[in-house]
Amino acid sequence: MPKLISWGLAYVLIVFFNSEQSFAQSNTDITGSVVEIEVPAPALRGNLLGSSDVQNAAVYLPPGYNAQTERRFPVVYLLHGIFDNYGVWIEHFEVPEILDRLIDGDLMAEMIVVMPNGGNKYGGGFYRNSPVGGNWADYIADDLVGFIDGQFRTIADDASRAVVGHSMGGYGALHLAMERSDVFSVVWALSPCCLAANDDLSFGNDAWQRAAAIKGPEDLQDLIDSGDFYPIAALGVAAAFSPDVEAAPTYGAFPFEIVRGEVVLDDAAFDRYLDELPVRRVRASRENLRNLQGLAIGVGLGDQFMHIPTGTLEFSQRLGAERIPHRLDVYAGDHRQQVGERLENIVFPWVAEQMVLAE
Amino acid sequence: MPKLISWGLAYVLIVFFNSEQSFAQSNTDITGSVVEIEVPAPALRGNLLGSSDVQNAAVYLPPGYNAQTERRFPVVYLLHGIFDNYGVWIEHFEVPEILDRLIDGDLMAEMIVVMPNGGNKYGGGFYRNSPVGGNWADYIADDLVGFIDGQFRTIADDASRAVVGHSMGGYGALHLAMERSDVFSVVWALSPCCLAANDDLSFGNDAWQRAAAIKGPEDLQDLIDSGDFYPIAALGVAAAFSPDVEAAPTYGAFPFEIVRGEVVLDDAAFDRYLDELPVRRVRASRENLRNLQGLAIGVGLGDQFMHIPTGTLEFSQRLGAERIPHRLDVYAGDHRQQVGERLENIVFPWVAEQMVLAE
Amino acid sequence: MPKLISWGLAYVLIVFFNSEQSFAQSNTDITGSVVEIEVPAPALRGNLLGSSDVQNAAVYLPPGYNAQTERRFPVVYLLHGIFDNYGVWIEHFEVPEILDRLIDGDLMAEMIVVMPNGGNKYGGGFYRNSPVGGNWADYIADDLVGFIDGQFRTIADDASRAVVGHSMGGYGALHLAMERSDVFSVVWALSPCCLAANDDLSFGNDAWQRAAAIKGPEDLQDLIDSGDFYPIAALGVAAAFSPDVEAAPTYGAFPFEIVRGEVVLDDAAFDRYLDELPVRRVRASRENLRNLQGLAIGVGLGDQFMHIPTGTLEFSQRLGAERIPHRLDVYAGDHRQQVGERLENIVFPWVAEQMVLAE
Amino acid sequence: MPKLISWGLAYVLIVFFNSEQSFAQSNTDITGSVVEIEVPAPALRGNLLGSSDVQNAAVYLPPGYNAQTERRFPVVYLLHGIFDNYGVWIEHFEVPEILDRLIDGDLMAEMIVVMPNGGNKYGGGFYRNSPVGGNWADYIADDLVGFIDGQFRTIADDASRAVVGHSMGGYGALHLAMERSDVFSVVWALSPCCLAANDDLSFGNDAWQRAAAIKGPEDLQDLIDSGDFYPIAALGVAAAFSPDVEAAPTYGAFPFEIVRGEVVLDDAAFDRYLDELPVRRVRASRENLRNLQGLAIGVGLGDQFMHIPTGTLEFSQRLGAERIPHRLDVYAGDHRQQVGERLENIVFPWVAEQMVLAE
Repeated sequence: MPKLISWGLAYVLIVFFNSEQSFAQSNTDITGSVVEIEVPAPALRGNLLGSSDVQNAAVYLPPGYNAQTERRFPVVYLLHGIFDNYGVWIEHFEVPEILDRLIDGDLMAEMIVVMPNGGNKYGGGFYRNSPVGGNWADYIADDLVGFIDGQFRTIADDASRAVVGHSMGGYGALHLAMERSDVFSVVWALSPCCLAANDDLSFGNDAWQRAAAIKGPEDLQDLIDSGDFYPIAALGVAAAFSPDVEAAPTYGAFPFEIVRGEVVLDDAAFDRYLDELPVRRVRASRENLRNLQGLAIGVGLGDQFMHIPTGTLEFSQRLGAERIPHRLDVYAGDHRQQVGERLENIVFPWVAEQMVLAE
Repeated sequence: MPKLISWGLAYVLIVFFNSEQSFAQSNTDITGSVVEIEVPAPALRGNLLGSSDVQNAAVYLPPGYNAQTERRFPVVYLLHGIFDNYGVWIEHFEVPEILDRLIDGDLMAEMIVVMPNGGNKYGGGFYRNSPVGGNWADYIADDLVGFIDGQFRTIADDASRAVVGHSMGGYGALHLAMERSDVFSVVWALSPCCLAANDDLSFGNDAWQRAAAIKGPEDLQDLIDSGDFYPIAALGVAAAFSPDVEAAPTYGAFPFEIVRGEVVLDDAAFDRYLDELPVRRVRASRENLRNLQGLAIGVGLGDQFMHIPTGTLEFSQRLGAERIPHRLDVYAGDHRQQVGERLENIVFPWVAEQMVLAE
Repeated sequence: MPKLISWGLAYVLIVFFNSEQSFAQSNTDITGSVVEIEVPAPALRGNLLGSSDVQNAAVYLPPGYNAQTERRFPVVYLLHGIFDNYGVWIEHFEVPEILDRLIDGDLMAEMIVVMPNGGNKYGGGFYRNSPVGGNWADYIADDLVGFIDGQFRTIADDASRAVVGHSMGGYGALHLAMERSDVFSVVWALSPCCLAANDDLSFGNDAWQRAAAIKGPEDLQDLIDSGDFYPIAALGVAAAFSPDVEAAPTYGAFPFEIVRGEVVLDDAAFDRYLDELPVRRVRASRENLRNLQGLAIGVGLGDQFMHIPTGTLEFSQRLGAERIPHRLDVYAGDHRQQVGERLENIVFPWVAEQMVLAE
Repeated sequence: MPKLISWGLAYVLIVFFNSEQSFAQSNTDITGSVVEIEVPAPALRGNLLGSSDVQNAAVYLPPGYNAQTERRFPVVYLLHGIFDNYGVWIEHFEVPEILDRLIDGDLMAEMIVVMPNGGNKYGGGFYRNSPVGGNWADYIADDLVGFIDGQFRTIADDASRAVVGHSMGGYGALHLAMERSDVFSVVWALSPCCLAANDDLSFGNDAWQRAAAIKGPEDLQDLIDSGDFYPIAALGVAAAFSPDVEAAPTYGAFPFEIVRGEVVLDDAAFDRYLDELPVRRVRASRENLRNLQGLAIGVGLGDQFMHIPTGTLEFSQRLGAERIPHRLDVYAGDHRQQVGERLENIVFPWVAEQMVLAE
């Protein structure tokens, strides 16, 4: 049985008791329950950023989970953004309440929703495998999925498994779609970061120079203590997309040098970096992408992270050029404000429709 | 009152009696009714292709129309493709049955759906204003909308009026969205033709040369009698997008000459032609497009008309570059086979969600 | 007569004496001469940035200028980059020596080359008309061209007049090509800035926030004193592309607000800003661009200003889509190092070939 | 020694005697000579289209070739278009006269220019290796280059070897650049065909259906006898890009079926076909392309083959996105009329400048 831990504020107190009750055969639940679990993460062992090989996650169990004790449920994995943890889904976006309303209103089938953590010292591991940051893709697709299928009554089949994410987690959802379509068959990326190296993610952003200027552990600690978004995120991107286990203390290989204050690209290193980005991986991944049951991306045109709308539009264009079915939603809005509303009105119902919902 | 005419096969017989009953105060209808109407079309007067200034249309009235005699309903206008008429919606795509099922299953609000004709001697008028083919845009947006609002209990407001079309009608829906957002506020284009002059719609297609080679009325009649799709459609495109009232007998200005068997473009004429295409009109129309409550385009990647997927993807890209919210659905499928299924599962429910459904 | 002023180092001393000699009927010159002139600039009057209405410029007169006293010469205008002045052409890129070698080697016709200043308090006026910065486009195309044609033996015809620029000056050359093809008919832009709002020129660059954060004259002076490239350049871009005479002390209208530390775009203002950029002005300017005798753009792929290669490629693509003849040179190199070599080996010879060289 | 054969009209009679004289120590030649040779073509053995394994070619020897009997010369290979042979260079484009003028005017170094044949029963082999049409790429890069280096005083090094082509030959030049940069280091493609499957080269062109409709040898012979450009060229494209040795009599695998008169794509076959096209091969070939000393493409905007300008612009864009240096020339003109003039004024001089001209 998963270890039960009480979670934060009002909702989770309810949840906790709900969960207690459910073991006592409550079969009139009208809300689901959230349990917090600890998940062994062998895929993260040996990482150089100090991430633990046991990771926390939250699991939403739908109202019928305890009542129908033989029934198995499809599962959605929900990946959060950089500098965050699964708490953002629960406290900020109020996902459990959204799911309760959808299920209660018969607008979505009952599903298990798993909310892992993906953060680390540099903000996050981008749900990628890295010799520096640890193998976060393997953690999600193997360790976590295996654990969940072992501990909960899931339909343990890719056709009944979806991955949804926001920002860094939107990137993660697409990355897993491209690399691990053996595990996930439905994908929705909300405002996915890092699809292309444009605009604020280009090396024209001063933040890269600040990250690359780090010489020793003190510099690194100072930067992390500063809490400055872009340069720390740049360290995270480097550790995930361009890792170098020799390059202490940051362990990121920057594909440029600073010559007289100007970024001078190292062509071969820049190639390697760009080749890791999703817009460049569409062709190589097209069989996986075509095999998905559902693939969707949504973005707000006023996203504060300027590379996100442009990268999303370019990614959609590449999907089209490679004849890969997908849905693109371009809406008025910004990086965060529409996320809750869209999850409720569009994302969860659509995702559920694309999944195989019963064994 | 609209003139009632029985329509075709089984469905319309039912409709006919339904309609009879409804006037006898049936208030337990579970299917809607279809009435065929004749619509005065002053906007078409004086056209050079012999289109009548009275046009037929069909109107679907939802089950509640007769029972709730004070209620007003939102309206969707449904535009058919080239070489077709409104019958394709009823007999081929079975739209009335689709609407009945959606309303019965509470998957869509009750709406009036109006199916006009848009065909002419060259296949169709592309729902555009033309001194040659007649002012089809005005016919739809002014004559027809006015007539419908006068004859039926509609919510006579753009916020409650949508336009949906397929192929030539998909083009028409987008054209009306760009030019007449004062009348329509929700738009879905299925497999829209003619967004860009690519592939089979480029002058590299031999059909253009056949159309341009017509010298006299006999040549023209021979071609029309042949029923050859592309060259007749080329006449239709020329009459709609590049009309020339002096250029008897076709009245189309072709933006090229044939020199020693090869297409030689006339630069200024080619510009004028290209500037009429939607991919070139996004910027000029952006205020109209941004004011829409909903804008969506869908296309099958295996469309037999090769310019349709490429044009749709390019149009979406231009929308994105101009920061215009929209939904793009790219699916496995071809020009026609998925249309019925998509209308039922996606288009009508989505369109209804974007509309103001009550006064 | 232009006022003669000795210029800087070795070369100009030679020039000075050369020039002296030339008035003494030297007709065996094998080098040209450089004269510095003061040019009345009524177009700049009333600007809010304190730019003078008399501007300095340098003029290269080819070896034959003094010998052939009846001959008239074609003219190339050479526009420098931001934070610079015409001295960069003479001292850094050694343009007079390049021209001497080309003419001596019979690799280029004899031409007058005019090097104006275009700098101001914010780095430069981008050779644009602005109620804030002054009408720099009019200064170049009207005041300066008129003055030069009045003072020197030029072929005073657009067919014999070219404009070449680097970086901000590359932008300027294209801007003048698009707006003033009545004056200039041959254009080469080297590494032109500001063609599209990408990468380091997007509002994702922190520099914009620093520029927008200026509250009073002290903040402004502090920033200017700091010499920080990007934020000062951002002020220059705002004053030139998005001026606001009410917005003291910077007089730039920024098309965004900072909300909780994040850039939030103002849609209408952002539109207006984007619409001023060359990638968005190709269609409106296509008649002017097509009428040019020669249009070329070159860029090094390793340009430190990341938006320059991407913007140049996008601009070329738009030119092609609008059927505008042009030459694009994409080479291995960076923002500055190849400029001298390219001017000598490619730019000046090609520009001369496109011009009408004799009356 | 190459076998000398008199060629065609006036020019080659002169050549013939010139050549005779040259063996008798003429050292005052002011024109080059053209010799026709027969080249063993083992790479073509076993082809299914009846192409001979001995191929004719013409070789232009510059004026100094006979006078300076120790000197070795750089070599340019010139590839002709579909439905043509090397005669087009000599009689139509008058390349020998162009070369004579350039060398005489000191506008280009003396070079050997080799003009092979590349035609076959379907118009041409596209200079590609094919189990159906024979290994034309190997024939050019191995058989012919080896033969030329053996028979003539060439600088037998890739740095001194260029390939230039027009239309199908422009495709061939780029294909060899991408695949055989070990052999060729400078490339100019004039109006290259077949870079992307757009417009008249898309399966929307009726010609593909006519080619695919061939059932037996009589159909095939009838089509070839008809001389109809597009459907025969479609056979050639299929045999070269999508060959199938089982698919007698055409031996082309068409990536679609005709279902009720409409093209229905076979997704996997369509992928394989598209993946052979240059716009899709830029990334995989980027190391080869970057290693070139010179890469240029030119196209007339009014090309009668509509896919050629669009494909060229898209190819340039992909080169830029992969950071591959190149020159793009987009000019007013059509498929053929500017070729001679451009060879003389731009292509040959530029190509010579990029090559290593002496040992």
